[in-house]
Amino acid sequence: MDYVAAVDVGGTTMKGGFIARDGTILHFERRPTPRAEGPDRVIEAVSTFVTDLSRPRNGVQSGDPGEGRPVGVGVAVPGLVTPTHAVFAAAFGWRDVPAAAFAGPLADGDLPVALGHDVRSAGEAELAYGGGGRDVLYLPIGTGIAGAVVLSGSLYGGAGGWAGQIGHIPVWPDGAACGCGQRGCLAAYASGSAVAARCEVGSAEEVVRLVASGDARAAKVWADAVEALAVALATYTLTLDPAEIVIGGGVSLAGDVLLVPLRERLAARLSFRPAPAIRASGLGPRAGLLGAGLLAWRAASDVSPRPTT
Amino acid sequence: MDYVAAVDVGGTTMKGGFIARDGTILHFERRPTPRAEGPDRVIEAVSTFVTDLSRPRNGVQSGDPGEGRPVGVGVAVPGLVTPTHAVFAAAFGWRDVPAAAFAGPLADGDLPVALGHDVRSAGEAELAYGGGGRDVLYLPIGTGIAGAVVLSGSLYGGAGGWAGQIGHIPVWPDGAACGCGQRGCLAAYASGSAVAARCEVGSAEEVVRLVASGDARAAKVWADAVEALAVALATYTLTLDPAEIVIGGGVSLAGDVLLVPLRERLAARLSFRPAPAIRASGLGPRAGLLGAGLLAWRAASDVSPRPTT
Repeated sequence: MDYVAAVDVGGTTMKGGFIARDGTILHFERRPTPRAEGPDRVIEAVSTFVTDLSRPRNGVQSGDPGEGRPVGVGVAVPGLVTPTHAVFAAAFGWRDVPAAAFAGPLADGDLPVALGHDVRSAGEAELAYGGGGRDVLYLPIGTGIAGAVVLSGSLYGGAGGWAGQIGHIPVWPDGAACGCGQRGCLAAYASGSAVAARCEVGSAEEVVRLVASGDARAAKVWADAVEALAVALATYTLTLDPAEIVIGGGVSLAGDVLLVPLRERLAARLSFRPAPAIRASGLGPRAGLLGAGLLAWRAASDVSPRPTT
Repeated sequence: MDYVAAVDVGGTTMKGGFIARDGTILHFERRPTPRAEGPDRVIEAVSTFVTDLSRPRNGVQSGDPGEGRPVGVGVAVPGLVTPTHAVFAAAFGWRDVPAAAFAGPLADGDLPVALGHDVRSAGEAELAYGGGGRDVLYLPIGTGIAGAVVLSGSLYGGAGGWAGQIGHIPVWPDGAACGCGQRGCLAAYASGSAVAARCEVGSAEEVVRLVASGDARAAKVWADAVEALAVALATYTLTLDPAEIVIGGGVSLAGDVLLVPLRERLAARLSFRPAPAIRASGLGPRAGLLGAGLLAWRAASDVSPRPTT
């Protein structure tokens, strides 16, 4: 059975695996993203992960395909991304990293390696496997925040392919400093890394646990995050009139702790029109990996068959 | 020669006229919008205007078509609009006004009367006659503010046709009260009516004159308007990555007094990507009337020819 290899490079964790054409995840593993060690070490870690996944296998790992090697590799990264370059990623300090840098020794080989944007790819996965509608904002909230803007049933990329940078819209202009260089960005209040930092704990999961336990400080940080999201989603709703907003990423695992107050605050910020429905993604944090898999399938089918002469 | 009648219902002025298929304005007149006299008086004034324009003519007015009557009527109004109803308009206090109310005695007649959104119609006119591009925000600033969202060469309406309510996105959340019931809306700082009110003068034109003459208070009001626009356009740019932003409406006649500081402030609010080009509409305040004309042409061509039996 043909399969592809995929790596979704998140802010704290890289998810990698093998994916069948129907979206079945045949193999899954996580590795830490060595973000603290600098831009080059992250590139190297991705390249190593890609190389390891691309080796021919013979079924030694449980859940692996029986044998063979992947027919393509997809790498999904955050920031501003083109098919040839990771143009900018605030999370890693990347500027103009060529796609070949992530492919390592495969770059000159015959295995197609596709680079894409993590959230747009995840949005493609939501469209393909998640049962999304025609006019939907898909908003994964993980270490960072970006949106996949689905309009009339297709992902919209904008004039230059840079649409969906919703994590960096100014919700409280001139407010908290953001890693991107702007102030008051949505991500500075509502990303997983921001809520953890503002609460001085290690992760957004810990913040959610503290909120559930009645911790006052965590409750305030969480309320600020929900309010920032409500402002951003009110703006999106007034601009693009979506039928539905789908929250994904690690923070969506908070479930009703996030969704119930967010629905209430979004409705409160819209005076003359109803709020669209808000739900958590059914794919959860797997959407990014499935999206990287779609990149790989596309790259694999773009490769012309070899002449047999 | 066939022509249509069109009425563009602005916050202070109604513009009406006859329009040829190629966009030539054959006749043009203005009437005041009796906004201060309440919702019903405005509806009545529109209906009277439509009725007057729909009468058979015989060329008594200079510039009129020689004879005949229009083949269709288009009425463009602000707010939330469907083909059958003006659902909500903060400017006039309208809620669920049926389209027939604007047509008056024509409603039961054989002259097709089309209702549409003023800014979306103006956006259609920009696309048809203004030389706009494929991924453009067309933002008329008049008494109010709304946007026509042009994506991949087409006007995007959203899931329910309510996209483009950019005048009511929160730029300074919880800031100045807006007529729509929300706080901190773009229109509360940057619409023509807002800058006039904040400067305590009669019109945005007067504010522009005061700015040019060095008046300190007018300069502050204008700077606030520019900053609010910069925040809104930064948000739009990050979300939808337009190639160009085209400012229209009466306030666009301010020209460089608006455009020069706006370009500078938008660039300052974007740290990791370039700002799109910003220009004033070539159609200026005529875009709304031309848009109402397009509604009328569409309605006229939807009418099946009568059977001749």
